[in-house]
Amino acid sequence: MRRWNGWGDEQFSLELPEQGQAFLTDRVGGGSPLADITLHAACEQVPESRLPSDPQVDDLIDRSPETRVRHARGQSLPDWLAMRSGDIGEFPDGVAFPNTSTDVRALLHYANDKDIQLIPYGGGTSVAGHINPVDQGKPVLTVSLANLNRLMDLDRESQIATFGAGTPGPLVESQLRAHGYTLGHFPQSFELSTIGGWVASRSSGQQSLRYGRIEQLFAGGRIETLQGTLTIPTIPASSAGPDVREMILGSEGRLGLITEVKARISRLPEQESFHVVFFPDWDKARTAARKLVQNRVQLSMLRLSNAIETETQLALAGHPKLIGLLERFLAFRGAEDGKCMMTFGVTGSKAQCRGALAEARKLCSDYKGVYTGTKLGAKWAEKRFTMPYLREALWQMGYAVDTLETATDWDNVDTLMNRIETNLREGLTDRNERTHVFTHLSHFYGQGCSIYTTYVFRVADSYNETLSRWQHLKNTTSDLIVRNRGTISHQHGVGKDHAPFLPVEKGELGMRAIRSLTQSFDPDQRLNPKTLLD
Amino acid sequence: MRRWNGWGDEQFSLELPEQGQAFLTDRVGGGSPLADITLHAACEQVPESRLPSDPQVDDLIDRSPETRVRHARGQSLPDWLAMRSGDIGEFPDGVAFPNTSTDVRALLHYANDKDIQLIPYGGGTSVAGHINPVDQGKPVLTVSLANLNRLMDLDRESQIATFGAGTPGPLVESQLRAHGYTLGHFPQSFELSTIGGWVASRSSGQQSLRYGRIEQLFAGGRIETLQGTLTIPTIPASSAGPDVREMILGSEGRLGLITEVKARISRLPEQESFHVVFFPDWDKARTAARKLVQNRVQLSMLRLSNAIETETQLALAGHPKLIGLLERFLAFRGAEDGKCMMTFGVTGSKAQCRGALAEARKLCSDYKGVYTGTKLGAKWAEKRFTMPYLREALWQMGYAVDTLETATDWDNVDTLMNRIETNLREGLTDRNERTHVFTHLSHFYGQGCSIYTTYVFRVADSYNETLSRWQHLKNTTSDLIVRNRGTISHQHGVGKDHAPFLPVEKGELGMRAIRSLTQSFDPDQRLNPKTLLD
Repeated sequence: MRRWNGWGDEQFSLELPEQGQAFLTDRVGGGSPLADITLHAACEQVPESRLPSDPQVDDLIDRSPETRVRHARGQSLPDWLAMRSGDIGEFPDGVAFPNTSTDVRALLHYANDKDIQLIPYGGGTSVAGHINPVDQGKPVLTVSLANLNRLMDLDRESQIATFGAGTPGPLVESQLRAHGYTLGHFPQSFELSTIGGWVASRSSGQQSLRYGRIEQLFAGGRIETLQGTLTIPTIPASSAGPDVREMILGSEGRLGLITEVKARISRLPEQESFHVVFFPDWDKARTAARKLVQNRVQLSMLRLSNAIETETQLALAGHPKLIGLLERFLAFRGAEDGKCMMTFGVTGSKAQCRGALAEARKLCSDYKGVYTGTKLGAKWAEKRFTMPYLREALWQMGYAVDTLETATDWDNVDTLMNRIETNLREGLTDRNERTHVFTHLSHFYGQGCSIYTTYVFRVADSYNETLSRWQHLKNTTSDLIVRNRGTISHQHGVGKDHAPFLPVEKGELGMRAIRSLTQSFDPDQRLNPKTLLD
Repeated sequence: MRRWNGWGDEQFSLELPEQGQAFLTDRVGGGSPLADITLHAACEQVPESRLPSDPQVDDLIDRSPETRVRHARGQSLPDWLAMRSGDIGEFPDGVAFPNTSTDVRALLHYANDKDIQLIPYGGGTSVAGHINPVDQGKPVLTVSLANLNRLMDLDRESQIATFGAGTPGPLVESQLRAHGYTLGHFPQSFELSTIGGWVASRSSGQQSLRYGRIEQLFAGGRIETLQGTLTIPTIPASSAGPDVREMILGSEGRLGLITEVKARISRLPEQESFHVVFFPDWDKARTAARKLVQNRVQLSMLRLSNAIETETQLALAGHPKLIGLLERFLAFRGAEDGKCMMTFGVTGSKAQCRGALAEARKLCSDYKGVYTGTKLGAKWAEKRFTMPYLREALWQMGYAVDTLETATDWDNVDTLMNRIETNLREGLTDRNERTHVFTHLSHFYGQGCSIYTTYVFRVADSYNETLSRWQHLKNTTSDLIVRNRGTISHQHGVGKDHAPFLPVEKGELGMRAIRSLTQSFDPDQRLNPKTLLD
């Protein structure tokens, strides 16, 4: 059963190894956990549903308290604090589970007729408040696309697969793999998030270097809007005016509900492997990473941890003896304190993998990188989706953990990363608290890269103060990002949490452009109001 | 001096070799040319300018007849017929040559104050009527960006170059090459078209397999609109809502005037070469091309001529002895009648070129491709921008030549290509005229490719009948394309000629999305009216 108040399945949990606990105590102090409320207690808070009855849609709607609790919040840190404190705020008045696009149209008619707000719901993995109801004095109906979860069509020649928008990552891949194909889209939320959610929030996967972001994978599809059905035809590329696909990508439910996604797929690769290189310092490491992508070395993924993330990962990895051996080997080769870990993947035909690996190793070695083979890379691949479970383990120990991400041009990467880290690291000094902060670069482009920063701090002795600590860190850093040439989000989307910062990034006329779309498709603001923009 | 009524520089002309003439006579009959009017005669038609005087902008505006003639029409076949017959239709009332973004803002104020229509003008190479004035009872001011032609900034680390929007292809490349960089965008119009025009019309270059379409190269920039200045920041990638860049791409002057383009550039490659392979039949050739791109072989360009184009190119190439030798060699290796010519390019580091060439040769050989080396490829590269000059040579012999292009998914490529060719080939049968029709595929994607069809027919004994022949071929084929899963344009844009077909492709709600943008930015339809959409 899925955890009602956190990440993933209840059956699965991670434990922090002993030396990981010691490391954290050393960095931010010992933690003492807050008490969580029970699902039962949460359900008791749920008010009477305000949804009027309508024979056309009643069968599709679940008004039970538990279902409403389970769809009330996403996975942001404030969402966690809400679900664990019991101060959950708004609940949807019901959750609809349409089985077809026709059902979705019926729900849109219902919303129009009865003055109801709709929130589209994919995997509920938003970390930016996308699917949280807001009180505007109207009933709120969350629409889960969970039943639209099938591979509907497979065009092998054009390599296009049509999926129900609610298909989650594992079902996307397993249904394709049965035919010898892959989508290759692996965001960290992969286990729970859905293909429609990826499109709606402009997601990016860990192997975007090979497969592209969801913008490159989304070929077209079907969107049910209050103005009718928008069908986006699949065309490989076009100069026929502004691209309507790109208006749906990132629309976060404001223009309509995506019901079918046609996606560009690939044959399963002949080979794939992940490799780890350690660099003696950040400057060499970052330059090597930049050159790898600017030289178009055919990698499928690339990730570069800064020195503190490298140190933290090795400390939290367990197996102190093996790590000790590794560190002695690296020190002998010149990568000591301040060393930075790079992970890269090669994927494709045997010849492509051989060529890319040789080029990458040569370039890394030009920057004093110490190649350590595929062992650590295989570990990374094995654990690529499990990091969110660690949050639960840390929470039980009294630590809150959150991430912030952006992207910026190469000339600004260091400056912005340092400002973000400093702001987070010093953000709680006034409150006599320390924050442990570390960063990796991922999603590399010729022009720049994404910056993904993790921060850990102790929960306070109350939920309110814990939330206040987070709000301070999040808001000051978000503001800093958009005022320093970063995007408010490279892969998490805008939702409600980032919406106040979007106008700084887009400018007045950029916002006008986006608003002209939402006003045209949803003049009464029935669809996911307050998300993306006011 | 640039030809006032056709392509390129007056000093440069191509001649069709003798056996090329014989080939055409055999296919469509002997031609007899129509008489062209002179520039002087054209200038005499130009009416008084209706532009009111305004001290803020008068210095920027040239109202002379010759300048107005030279900016009245693009390079479509009806544009040619207009300029050569003297039935030119509308002229702009003047041509403005702003020197800065501030000048452009002044022109926008002028347009608003004095109820004037503005047409942005880059290289004037449109083949879809983008820059042709339409009579709506208001003065029309064409705004040439020709003076905004400089490299304004070069960020080597982020590989971003900022150009004035009016910079033509050769000046883009020469200014970058001086620093060791290239944009790598080479549309056939390269010699005359501009970087701002590429963005406004969603252009694609011959080496898009490596460098991407203009969508991938356009990082941001500055657009002057009637609502103010829209600045699009450079961010490598973002999930912060719908992408405003993608709303400007293909906006064809309807939202504003692009004045600065920030473009993603690359280091000049270590190596580049172009290779030619002949396949015994279309089916093998097309499958090999599809596999090359779906297998992600790191090519920089790919072009595949069908059997008739292959035959035509060999016939028109001159050097009958050498071609005869080549054909005997090919026949010996199994590529006889029905053979298809593929040209591919490899570009990059030496290791990348070596790897890609080996993979490509292996794959082609699996499909019975006969590799002929780099000689014909070098010829292609040498003549890559000269094809439009051939149009002049054919015109002088009494032939009209035009091209039609689209893109579609792989499963539909053959069907659509055959329908397009048949429709063109049989289109003038009622008029007892033949059309010579041939096609190549270019711009390959995993999902499909572009289809680029050339058709040659005899000019009639009057301009009117010649235009009518063209209209019949163009309109019936355009209609056929959008009703058979093709885009109305893969690389030429919409302009006025394709606008009637756009709603079939985009659908009612797709058009609503685009129209919501034009209405928000230009409610009074002052900017390039009738282009893209009504």
